[in-house]
Amino acid sequence: MAVKHVDEYYESLNTMNPTAYILGEKVDQPYKHPMIKQMVAGVAETYRLANTSEGKKYLVAKSDLIDEEVSRFVKFYKSNDDLLAKVRMLKYLSHNIGTCFMRCTGMDAMNAVGIEAYRCDAEHGTSYWPRLLEFMKKVQRNDFVVFSGVTDVKGDRSLRPSQQKDPDMYVHVVDRNEEGIVVRGAKVHQTGSLCSHWGLIVPTREMREADKDYAVCFALPTDAKGLIHVYGRGTLEARSLEDIDLGNARFSKFAPMIIFDDVFIPWDNVFLCGEHEFAGAMVRNFGNYHRHSHGGCKCGVGDLFIGAAALAADYNGLKKVSHINNKLAEMMKIVQAIYGCSIAASVEGKPTESGIYNVDPVLSNTSKLFEGKDLHEVIRMMIEIAGGEVADLPSDRDMENPVIGPMLKKYLKGVDNVSTEDRIRLFRLIEKLAFESRDIVSNIHGAGSPETHRMTMLRNADLEQKKEFVKKIAKIVDQ
Amino acid sequence: MAVKHVDEYYESLNTMNPTAYILGEKVDQPYKHPMIKQMVAGVAETYRLANTSEGKKYLVAKSDLIDEEVSRFVKFYKSNDDLLAKVRMLKYLSHNIGTCFMRCTGMDAMNAVGIEAYRCDAEHGTSYWPRLLEFMKKVQRNDFVVFSGVTDVKGDRSLRPSQQKDPDMYVHVVDRNEEGIVVRGAKVHQTGSLCSHWGLIVPTREMREADKDYAVCFALPTDAKGLIHVYGRGTLEARSLEDIDLGNARFSKFAPMIIFDDVFIPWDNVFLCGEHEFAGAMVRNFGNYHRHSHGGCKCGVGDLFIGAAALAADYNGLKKVSHINNKLAEMMKIVQAIYGCSIAASVEGKPTESGIYNVDPVLSNTSKLFEGKDLHEVIRMMIEIAGGEVADLPSDRDMENPVIGPMLKKYLKGVDNVSTEDRIRLFRLIEKLAFESRDIVSNIHGAGSPETHRMTMLRNADLEQKKEFVKKIAKIVDQ
Amino acid sequence: MAVKHVDEYYESLNTMNPTAYILGEKVDQPYKHPMIKQMVAGVAETYRLANTSEGKKYLVAKSDLIDEEVSRFVKFYKSNDDLLAKVRMLKYLSHNIGTCFMRCTGMDAMNAVGIEAYRCDAEHGTSYWPRLLEFMKKVQRNDFVVFSGVTDVKGDRSLRPSQQKDPDMYVHVVDRNEEGIVVRGAKVHQTGSLCSHWGLIVPTREMREADKDYAVCFALPTDAKGLIHVYGRGTLEARSLEDIDLGNARFSKFAPMIIFDDVFIPWDNVFLCGEHEFAGAMVRNFGNYHRHSHGGCKCGVGDLFIGAAALAADYNGLKKVSHINNKLAEMMKIVQAIYGCSIAASVEGKPTESGIYNVDPVLSNTSKLFEGKDLHEVIRMMIEIAGGEVADLPSDRDMENPVIGPMLKKYLKGVDNVSTEDRIRLFRLIEKLAFESRDIVSNIHGAGSPETHRMTMLRNADLEQKKEFVKKIAKIVDQ
Amino acid sequence: MAVKHVDEYYESLNTMNPTAYILGEKVDQPYKHPMIKQMVAGVAETYRLANTSEGKKYLVAKSDLIDEEVSRFVKFYKSNDDLLAKVRMLKYLSHNIGTCFMRCTGMDAMNAVGIEAYRCDAEHGTSYWPRLLEFMKKVQRNDFVVFSGVTDVKGDRSLRPSQQKDPDMYVHVVDRNEEGIVVRGAKVHQTGSLCSHWGLIVPTREMREADKDYAVCFALPTDAKGLIHVYGRGTLEARSLEDIDLGNARFSKFAPMIIFDDVFIPWDNVFLCGEHEFAGAMVRNFGNYHRHSHGGCKCGVGDLFIGAAALAADYNGLKKVSHINNKLAEMMKIVQAIYGCSIAASVEGKPTESGIYNVDPVLSNTSKLFEGKDLHEVIRMMIEIAGGEVADLPSDRDMENPVIGPMLKKYLKGVDNVSTEDRIRLFRLIEKLAFESRDIVSNIHGAGSPETHRMTMLRNADLEQKKEFVKKIAKIVDQ
Repeated sequence: MAVKHVDEYYESLNTMNPTAYILGEKVDQPYKHPMIKQMVAGVAETYRLANTSEGKKYLVAKSDLIDEEVSRFVKFYKSNDDLLAKVRMLKYLSHNIGTCFMRCTGMDAMNAVGIEAYRCDAEHGTSYWPRLLEFMKKVQRNDFVVFSGVTDVKGDRSLRPSQQKDPDMYVHVVDRNEEGIVVRGAKVHQTGSLCSHWGLIVPTREMREADKDYAVCFALPTDAKGLIHVYGRGTLEARSLEDIDLGNARFSKFAPMIIFDDVFIPWDNVFLCGEHEFAGAMVRNFGNYHRHSHGGCKCGVGDLFIGAAALAADYNGLKKVSHINNKLAEMMKIVQAIYGCSIAASVEGKPTESGIYNVDPVLSNTSKLFEGKDLHEVIRMMIEIAGGEVADLPSDRDMENPVIGPMLKKYLKGVDNVSTEDRIRLFRLIEKLAFESRDIVSNIHGAGSPETHRMTMLRNADLEQKKEFVKKIAKIVDQ
Repeated sequence: MAVKHVDEYYESLNTMNPTAYILGEKVDQPYKHPMIKQMVAGVAETYRLANTSEGKKYLVAKSDLIDEEVSRFVKFYKSNDDLLAKVRMLKYLSHNIGTCFMRCTGMDAMNAVGIEAYRCDAEHGTSYWPRLLEFMKKVQRNDFVVFSGVTDVKGDRSLRPSQQKDPDMYVHVVDRNEEGIVVRGAKVHQTGSLCSHWGLIVPTREMREADKDYAVCFALPTDAKGLIHVYGRGTLEARSLEDIDLGNARFSKFAPMIIFDDVFIPWDNVFLCGEHEFAGAMVRNFGNYHRHSHGGCKCGVGDLFIGAAALAADYNGLKKVSHINNKLAEMMKIVQAIYGCSIAASVEGKPTESGIYNVDPVLSNTSKLFEGKDLHEVIRMMIEIAGGEVADLPSDRDMENPVIGPMLKKYLKGVDNVSTEDRIRLFRLIEKLAFESRDIVSNIHGAGSPETHRMTMLRNADLEQKKEFVKKIAKIVDQ
Repeated sequence: MAVKHVDEYYESLNTMNPTAYILGEKVDQPYKHPMIKQMVAGVAETYRLANTSEGKKYLVAKSDLIDEEVSRFVKFYKSNDDLLAKVRMLKYLSHNIGTCFMRCTGMDAMNAVGIEAYRCDAEHGTSYWPRLLEFMKKVQRNDFVVFSGVTDVKGDRSLRPSQQKDPDMYVHVVDRNEEGIVVRGAKVHQTGSLCSHWGLIVPTREMREADKDYAVCFALPTDAKGLIHVYGRGTLEARSLEDIDLGNARFSKFAPMIIFDDVFIPWDNVFLCGEHEFAGAMVRNFGNYHRHSHGGCKCGVGDLFIGAAALAADYNGLKKVSHINNKLAEMMKIVQAIYGCSIAASVEGKPTESGIYNVDPVLSNTSKLFEGKDLHEVIRMMIEIAGGEVADLPSDRDMENPVIGPMLKKYLKGVDNVSTEDRIRLFRLIEKLAFESRDIVSNIHGAGSPETHRMTMLRNADLEQKKEFVKKIAKIVDQ
Repeated sequence: MAVKHVDEYYESLNTMNPTAYILGEKVDQPYKHPMIKQMVAGVAETYRLANTSEGKKYLVAKSDLIDEEVSRFVKFYKSNDDLLAKVRMLKYLSHNIGTCFMRCTGMDAMNAVGIEAYRCDAEHGTSYWPRLLEFMKKVQRNDFVVFSGVTDVKGDRSLRPSQQKDPDMYVHVVDRNEEGIVVRGAKVHQTGSLCSHWGLIVPTREMREADKDYAVCFALPTDAKGLIHVYGRGTLEARSLEDIDLGNARFSKFAPMIIFDDVFIPWDNVFLCGEHEFAGAMVRNFGNYHRHSHGGCKCGVGDLFIGAAALAADYNGLKKVSHINNKLAEMMKIVQAIYGCSIAASVEGKPTESGIYNVDPVLSNTSKLFEGKDLHEVIRMMIEIAGGEVADLPSDRDMENPVIGPMLKKYLKGVDNVSTEDRIRLFRLIEKLAFESRDIVSNIHGAGSPETHRMTMLRNADLEQKKEFVKKIAKIVDQ
């Protein structure tokens, strides 16, 4: 089968040489950098689990494209069951990894692009769909990690791409010839770009005729010439450098900014170029899929918020306290709404002309809206239940100091049968779950912001039908 | 097939003679009473729709019990698809009826009782399950309306049934002989009891050894000797008497109190009697099913809240106002959470030994918790969008007064292309949707109250597993 | 002193003869009509309490205008302490009356008009302020009830007054001569118009040059020729007709629609006529004052929600249950926010040129926003704690039926030491508190709707100053 | 006057030599340590502002104790106006400092201790009150910074102090002689302990007879022998070390753990020792005062959340977008509730026997409950409005890299008239405001956790009176 082993994944990274900057320094072999290795480890864990008997049930499926078993991360959604399986896979992985594992954006982008590539070919006689199928076969056979490049830097948000003072504020075609195109621009929040083999770049919004150079979709290797990854900062990055007080003992997330410094893309890897009327649908498809994905992964993380709060209550001596139980139930309510609406969006999904299944957009956006708004309150409740120790906790270095270490171990003890060290490990994990900016901001802005979800819901909900129900029941007869 | 026509339903009611009191008066043929006829009409509409080509798809299914097509309202849930179909049926009916149609409690009770009857027979060698199957065959062949009797009056809530000063505060067996049992007590909130042919009576809580006379489950005809229905009052009942300003032009809800004044029940209709350890499971099953049902019907009503608010905005000249759109999206968010979690509870349901499928209890209770808490805010938003005219609106009689009628028509006009009469009809419907106590209190307390849902979620959520995930991620190893 | 006794109030009503319609019938002496008498009783209670030693402390103050003790309901706000005293008076009255007592709208309107009358005179040389002072003296000496007429019917909300197809959708001047003006139009939600001696009519929005005929403010007696009161309907009005199952045993609210069928107003009673630039400020002042008033009265009603819920828990045998205590605290949180922000709006109020004190608009609108949005959840929690009996409760007539009456008394009993009758009285009061449309809709729309409050807060909050704080802290120096 | 200049404050710190550990290292002169200097700067700013003409109005008042002008931070609350002035002072300081300035805990503790010292003397003939007055005179004359030590480490929360397996889990007296007492134990979250001259240590909970050794209150210098400060970690501490990407350019917060390694306290500095019945009241007074303080300072920080969000919208080109305005208003609603309830708690405060004024406990706890629960949502809204750039932002070092620096400046630009650098400064401040664990956890747990506030509200709200109002209105007459 085409599913890589974890060692093969690490080896494959060694063959690549992306241009990467970390805190102002150009870095070779970024995969091994101490600030990145925990993030690579998260992706690696998906390979490891895919090769376990339990994990395989969630992670592996037959592809009708290459007639082999492949990772679900590189497979088209060809049924409602595929959509259900995706949600369950992501929940399973979150339970094991506890943060982003960075392979969903590519998966969702492939499907989002596929639907429109097919439609564009049907309308314009282009050949984007067969090109994409070839790309997909390669990805499946090599079990590649593919990141998706969606969010442009956008400059002045009140102006369209072609109206910006600096024309490069959205990625666009600056040159083209028989072999391919040259693109320029920058994208932010590129989840896992430095753990990936390829990127699939998608327009970030709908485009008009005047914006047609911005209506461009393509794939490129992570180490393509002219592609620069800038790692950026997160709130807890310094902990990675020390490898102590990490919280999540093995895994972490990052999302670089990438700059396209006039990158050449051969035509074989171009899946949209100028047919502006498909740009908006591509990113809307992506958004709906990715909100659906969050319904799985963030529900899984939500279970960890609940488990961590419940465990902290145990460790503090507050097991079965009524108001804590009440809060745990309220936490579940939100987490289950995220999950339930994503499951329902799978069941109510519909096939497109390409054979790829779409999710129900109202339900998938509802799921994400709970994540974007209400999950923050779940985090607050976790902190509330855990208690004040989530802040100000002495460091691992303090614990190892011969003078104060023993005192700290004495005084930071909770219930009798739990070691001070374990209690601290738990508080460090809660700190990580609550204060890692990349995870929290992703809850709110990942796959679009709450306002986008509301607008998508309004656009897709049949308001006129609801008004007709009302008229019938109130006996209102339009003249 | 065994599905009745609407006329047959009305005729069948004429053959029954229940003991009924309405506002202090004993009433014959209560089905025709002006305060009840709109409620009977709601049930009748389910028969009418079952015989339409569209409605049949939602309402009719093959029963393996009598090998005929039957109403879904009298069928066991034998698959995840049956559970999904139930939710969709109830949403469909709400869209058409706009209030409770009163047939779900019986449907949910049959399944809830079935699971435990089967288990009790397996454990105690009783014969409740075959008796229930015979009862079900009769119900299916006659397409009966069955109400479920769950909520006892309960007296002092801090005391168990056998501890109450008055032993009759929970329905219990006061006598028994070879032919059957005699029961005494009272149940409140008996949705649709006076529109029904039979009732299926279920214990309202778990019981202990000392309470075993209260662990009793049985069926009885609505006009059984000694069974008294007391209609009670609702907030808007007076409108029914006049047949004007009704709001919902044809349908309404009621839920009498019933008194068991020493009612005899033959053994054939007894499905639990003394095996106290099954009482709690019966009512918990019922609760989980009925919260799942609300996920369908109240989502449907929620769509009407949204439609009514949107239509009111149109009629007021406020179409596409930004803050109103925002509120409509927020209303959808809650309504979709109710629906989505119920759909997901269907998909994740599991079969029991009896072959009847259970819903996922965490998801079905999550759905109901949104109804019990958040749907109230949806109603508030509907009122907010509609505007102050929801209160104080002149009556239909004012509109018909020759002096002020024309003035009112002039001054209560909204946008140009909508008649004042239609605008008023809409506000009256909104008033009904927002202020009919039976509907609103049912949102909060129907199928159990929010605190029950939270406790059920906690009991069924695997908190220990969540703690294990957390320990693994934080590298906490139990000694 | 100028404070009337309750008998004098009732006698004074007998001297008036307003044109009133109730459910389609023209009614003489409406004060005695069974559907109105509970509402008149609420106003009368303010007179009764003003003459008690406790009530006098809240309700009576010295007026510098006539140098006598007068009712606070007819006094200008001349200090922060006056504003504080108003809030405390209204809370005190709500504790005793449990619903609207209908005298605040006039009080707030007098002050709102006063500020702008003074400014208009200063700018335009008009004499509105001295006229208003004369009017106020008369009102103080006679201790009149004055209702304020604010909310026009408004037609198509997307059009300004002068743009409406029917020019009468906002009250306007249709004729004028040396003696006075003639006005036409209609106002809705005229709280207590039929319990009042006079009305003070205020423009409902800001006006432009083209709308100047709509920029009109004036006083008129409740029985002015051409003024028609249409009582309208409330959800629970039928209970008043029977005088049983009232819930609130003595008091209720109503808010007619009034129609100005070409009413003549002498110049002495005109306080704005054409100076359109003051219209908006008048109604904004009124809004800010009236939201501040709600901070007192609705906080008082909120205390009743809390008390009723706590008492219902007692009567059900659920005293000191943890989750109920938690909910009671949450109810207090909202009610105290309403109160606290209104108190703070008093303390931070500022004098205007007229000597009348304005409230802090951000804080008074914050108070009302909690009422408009969050108080609805307090009501839901009251219903949740009280339990399902809030709906479907048998009527008083059922209780008196010789057959079922004794059974109902037996079965509807709660804890041992509380009679069934008292338990039912409590549930009826809760029903009234939760489902009387006039009260609930007033929470949401009274004194403007939540969106208005948000906009008022934004307009009055110094956002630019907040941005400057941020720049300083972030070391951002504008170039 | 007794108000220090900022230079004097820095000089005074140089005279002290506390035992401090930072990330495992013992540190001399901790005031100058790069991880602490921003925090010392926050306290220093209070001295600087007290000596400006604007700041003096907020920060300085006459003390009747030494008949001199002193800092409000070291003055008893002797009137409602003093309480109002405190709230306004703290709001003013937050506007200028943007984080905790660490002097309120001592101020609140002095007053909290004073009330009970007075009462204890009256009951037991002790002399705590005159001792405290002497201590206060010294503090006032020297304008000392005093931190309060409240929160013990607490061990197993289900056990009382005297029941703990390790008797040192709460600070207690381990020895005593004629000169004084010896104390042992540890306290966490000691806001500003390393910026202070003295600490005032208060019991953390109510105590019973068996716990009387734990009922101890005393003052000690920050560098007392045996007192160890352990700095702990915060989420963003690493930024301090670099002095770049700080967000808040000059100020930050910290809250060490302190260990009492058998510290000797002379009797003159002991204000409670064994009179266990006053321990609970001391900490409850403190809690109520400190929640009241948060009503000022966190309202001020809340204004910064609003200002930062509004400025980010400007910088992104999204000025006056409807849904953003709506969110800004919602943010204000919460922030104003925090402020308004704190102002109201001042106005409704009452004097105690000692002459010190207490705040209204229901209102001050309501204020804090909004901070503990709802302010978290305000932070989420700030992030939502600001956009995804709050995470993943390239570091200052990236900006200075000659290769990528210019590209980053090009691509991270927003609207035309704002430099990229200023836009980044703003996002860094937002990151600091949203993700500094010490500030956020203080919102939730500072001055007690939400559950404590609810319980305090319930204890202080007169529920029985509310029930009596309800009975009167429902005509329920107790037999």
